[in-house]
Amino acid sequence: MKKNILVIPGDGIGQEVTIWGKKVLEKIGQKYGHEFSFDEAIMGHVAIEATGNPLPDETLEKAKSSDAILFGAIGHAKYDNDPSAKVRPEQGLLKIRKELGLYANLRPILLFDELLDASSLKPEVLKGTDILFFRELTGDVYFGEKNRSEDNNFASDLMNYNRYEVERIARKAYEAARTRSKKLCSVDKANVLETSRLWREVVQEIATEYPDVETEHMFIDNAAMQLVKNPKKFDVVLTANLFGDILTDEASQIAGSMGMLASASIGDGTGFFEPIHGSAHDIAGQNKANPLASILSVALMLDISFGLQAEAKEVTEAVAATLKAGWRTGDIANVNTPADKILGTQEMGAKVLE
Amino acid sequence: MKKNILVIPGDGIGQEVTIWGKKVLEKIGQKYGHEFSFDEAIMGHVAIEATGNPLPDETLEKAKSSDAILFGAIGHAKYDNDPSAKVRPEQGLLKIRKELGLYANLRPILLFDELLDASSLKPEVLKGTDILFFRELTGDVYFGEKNRSEDNNFASDLMNYNRYEVERIARKAYEAARTRSKKLCSVDKANVLETSRLWREVVQEIATEYPDVETEHMFIDNAAMQLVKNPKKFDVVLTANLFGDILTDEASQIAGSMGMLASASIGDGTGFFEPIHGSAHDIAGQNKANPLASILSVALMLDISFGLQAEAKEVTEAVAATLKAGWRTGDIANVNTPADKILGTQEMGAKVLE
Ligand SMILES: CC(C)[C@H](C(=O)O)[C@@H](O)C(=O)O
Ligand SMILES: CC(C)[C@H](C(=O)O)[C@@H](O)C(=O)O
Repeated sequence: MKKNILVIPGDGIGQEVTIWGKKVLEKIGQKYGHEFSFDEAIMGHVAIEATGNPLPDETLEKAKSSDAILFGAIGHAKYDNDPSAKVRPEQGLLKIRKELGLYANLRPILLFDELLDASSLKPEVLKGTDILFFRELTGDVYFGEKNRSEDNNFASDLMNYNRYEVERIARKAYEAARTRSKKLCSVDKANVLETSRLWREVVQEIATEYPDVETEHMFIDNAAMQLVKNPKKFDVVLTANLFGDILTDEASQIAGSMGMLASASIGDGTGFFEPIHGSAHDIAGQNKANPLASILSVALMLDISFGLQAEAKEVTEAVAATLKAGWRTGDIANVNTPADKILGTQEMGAKVLE
Repeated sequence: MKKNILVIPGDGIGQEVTIWGKKVLEKIGQKYGHEFSFDEAIMGHVAIEATGNPLPDETLEKAKSSDAILFGAIGHAKYDNDPSAKVRPEQGLLKIRKELGLYANLRPILLFDELLDASSLKPEVLKGTDILFFRELTGDVYFGEKNRSEDNNFASDLMNYNRYEVERIARKAYEAARTRSKKLCSVDKANVLETSRLWREVVQEIATEYPDVETEHMFIDNAAMQLVKNPKKFDVVLTANLFGDILTDEASQIAGSMGMLASASIGDGTGFFEPIHGSAHDIAGQNKANPLASILSVALMLDISFGLQAEAKEVTEAVAATLKAGWRTGDIANVNTPADKILGTQEMGAKVLE
């Protein structure tokens, strides 16, 4: 198989972890005889510094013509503390999602038994949890019209959905539910929001096409609570862009750390694979970041974009074996982890490669 | 002291738990020689059934002329599963918040040592947690213009804030932070939303008036994660209506159960006190609901609306003593709770009264 992969490390620890995702791809290519070729491009803060544009045209063109994208992270505290900044790294990420039509963001909450103890939740609450989030990614209040009054006394963002936007992600989620335990929970705020009422109506309609899947509707406030109380009760979770942003980060605690979670953004074209963690400038350049989420993003790429299930499985198992052997990065270590088992980014990446 | 209290039981378990809040008020009145007089009014599903209106004018008038309101809960599954319903119980709650100008919703996350085990979080993660949420309650996407296209293919809600709306709640939160550990965390999504950028700008400005308070700004996705990971790191949390709805329900797991959490909605007039739990029709009428949140709402009323700190303390201590004696309702019991220590709503209410 011949594939052309674009690597966009982005900002902060994105730079450090993406190297390891790429190395794993190279190794899998060698081992299974696939021709993976790589190109690299800039996005986010680094792109603003270099070109003034968080998503340079060249990056977008390369992205469109690649077979899959491995992305790192984006963001910088500089913009966060300056609410009036007009150009922001996040605009690059939002724009590429929109331009590539990446409307479905899949976030599997994969629980490694070895990490049951790393979470703040009790092991007995966690054990057996296996959730697959479908977060809508190109609509909602993220992309609605924004306004700021001239006198700076008023600001607004339009939360909105079109029927077709809900339909297409709902279908993807239902298809996935069919191959899993046939349970789907759609999360909204239909008791308050018109957008959510449309969302719920459409999901109810699509549900009739999948009578074998059991559908539940839940309000976002309740879902945020249930996810902590009893994560096991969820299987496929379908939700809008903003609610999905919040719920999936919350759910990352189930997996012990954000450093463990990968995500796949897909649509009708090129797929986009990234850790769910951010750029974490506070630990950037210190060889402290956990490279496992980037490596697990590669597993998702192999599986979803290339249809290489055996290769994907090998990557996931290499991660599991490394954890089983006791190796940890700081974020997934706990008081009982022997100091000599705590590794830096590079050492952890190398262990998985072995 | 002479006070005129309006009781609005509302829907579902609201009916059962509010009785106990009222009884506690009566008892405190007798003991301390206050003249508490009570009136009752309808709101929500029960009001729709009786009058077609979720907030009848009569209820609103009584509310405006009372000194404080003890509310139960609102909602009914009937409307939840019918996204096209035009009249909904929640409209009553939203309208009364708006009409009474209840712009600040205070939700203390009060942790009773006896309940450390009832949570899905590890006791060592929880211990020492003491958070006071300030959720804005009369703005945001809750009250912005709603639209539905004629062909039903598009729906929208306007998320928006005015500067003064952010200012007044920020001041309340900073004032509270001063009397506590002088730490305030403001939660927004300023990397994506214009509304949040205005929010952050205004909070940064107000912060300069309170140089003795340490301010942190956090994105909502990160906050939803940190709240599970390390709740102790939060003290006063200030946030918008929608984010507050989600975060406070999530935080209820810290206190072991939604059945334990009370909230105070205040503004420039009458204060409004309610449990944060919903109407829970699935357990309504079964003498299963936990009355403690309603009783703790009364403690907030005594403290905040009437300035009766000693009386408020007595109520909170009565709840603590009841828990210490081992009494539990089902929601806060665990596998180690002896069966004869698990009480119904009435029995639990009576224990606290004793
Ligand atoms: C960086 C930010 C714009 C982004 C989002 O909110 O979508 C991030 O939090 C994510 O979840 O990928
Ligand atoms: C019932 C609903 C409208 C309400 C809200 O979202 O504000 C409730 O969840 C709450 O938090 O008081």
